[in-house]
Amino acid sequence: MKIAVLGTGGGARAHIARLGGLGHEVHVGTRDPRATLARTEPDMMGTPPFGSWLADHPGIELHTFTEAAERGELVINGIDSHNAVAALSAAAEQLAGKTLIDYAVPFVYNPDIAHPWPTPWGVMPTLDPCDSDSLAEQIQRALPDTKVVKAFVTQEQDTVVDPKAIGGGEHTMFIAGEHADAKRQTTDLLKAYGWSDILDLGPLVAARGMELYAHMHSAIGFALGFGTHFGIKVVR
Amino acid sequence: MKIAVLGTGGGARAHIARLGGLGHEVHVGTRDPRATLARTEPDMMGTPPFGSWLADHPGIELHTFTEAAERGELVINGIDSHNAVAALSAAAEQLAGKTLIDYAVPFVYNPDIAHPWPTPWGVMPTLDPCDSDSLAEQIQRALPDTKVVKAFVTQEQDTVVDPKAIGGGEHTMFIAGEHADAKRQTTDLLKAYGWSDILDLGPLVAARGMELYAHMHSAIGFALGFGTHFGIKVVR
Repeated sequence: MKIAVLGTGGGARAHIARLGGLGHEVHVGTRDPRATLARTEPDMMGTPPFGSWLADHPGIELHTFTEAAERGELVINGIDSHNAVAALSAAAEQLAGKTLIDYAVPFVYNPDIAHPWPTPWGVMPTLDPCDSDSLAEQIQRALPDTKVVKAFVTQEQDTVVDPKAIGGGEHTMFIAGEHADAKRQTTDLLKAYGWSDILDLGPLVAARGMELYAHMHSAIGFALGFGTHFGIKVVR
Repeated sequence: MKIAVLGTGGGARAHIARLGGLGHEVHVGTRDPRATLARTEPDMMGTPPFGSWLADHPGIELHTFTEAAERGELVINGIDSHNAVAALSAAAEQLAGKTLIDYAVPFVYNPDIAHPWPTPWGVMPTLDPCDSDSLAEQIQRALPDTKVVKAFVTQEQDTVVDPKAIGGGEHTMFIAGEHADAKRQTTDLLKAYGWSDILDLGPLVAARGMELYAHMHSAIGFALGFGTHFGIKVVR
């Protein structure tokens, strides 16, 4: 299947590599492919430049967001949350009728703080939107002809693409969205990744809870020790 | 041990009954004991009047908030979130030096809506405080001489007092607070309730995530079907 991954960060790379391994034709989108490939320094998250990563992953094509969106039959959105609505809106025509899986946490980046993530516990990031809206709903409103599904967001993306690495895969993935066929497509992808417990939380308004969960995810991660991988299981 | 439970709602009753069963001397606090006992109608949550419940639970003493706080060596706060800071501040002297466990979700009650809880999915409640502050932190700031612990909030209180009812107890309880001795006391109580996996999320700022998790808790509950009991397990 032709799958577009929009974004070149650490999360996007987890999906790109895994999708390639599953035999999909992966089309990666970035704002400016030449600029992305010209970068030689790690980004603010410490992620190595995409060009060197790409050299180790032959067969992956790099395009603009619009070109990648056009080629993908299914689209995964890994664009950073503050640029997502604008960048996706510019590709609305290419995304029309397609499933778009969004996994962003809309943390507010504070340029006065060198590292945007929480530290134990000097800095807590805040979320925007928060509580009465969600990024996924904003994207759906901006792209009414696209079928937005919120998923993946409650786990690290390395875990999303390889759930069995933790507890033998005995944990839970959540999805939400307005379109049953798009949620079926997302579920099929998740099963291919190795997920067996996939809980449909209903319409896209449930994305609020999924995004707000980011604070718990951070707190659990810090409590277990930075770098410890974990999953959340709904026990019933 | 003398334990005060402030509040007479469904959650408070779960703790009162369980603590009594564990052999503790339970002192229940309410704003106006006579008014509480005079009530003959269920409250807005459908909870039967406290007087009839109390008649089935001999040996439980009903006091004002201040009187109960004075008698308790450990205090559990089940006062509704919007009145909590004011009601607890009025008992600051009686609460000084003591551990106060808070489990409230600061959902905003909208008086224009007959039922304040979310419906699938017409109404989503919002939270206040939210994201950049938490109710637990507000309480701690208002009562600097009290040792506030946030706990219980990520589970229904019936599950908090009887974790083994779900999945044999194989799920996770979270605590947060600034005072190590207060967290030890809370952990001891949780072990007596039957908890084996208790994760200390660190300082009280982690209460933000615990309170924000309320939206996920609601969404999971609706997804599983109203009335289905469940727990959350951190798989690592």
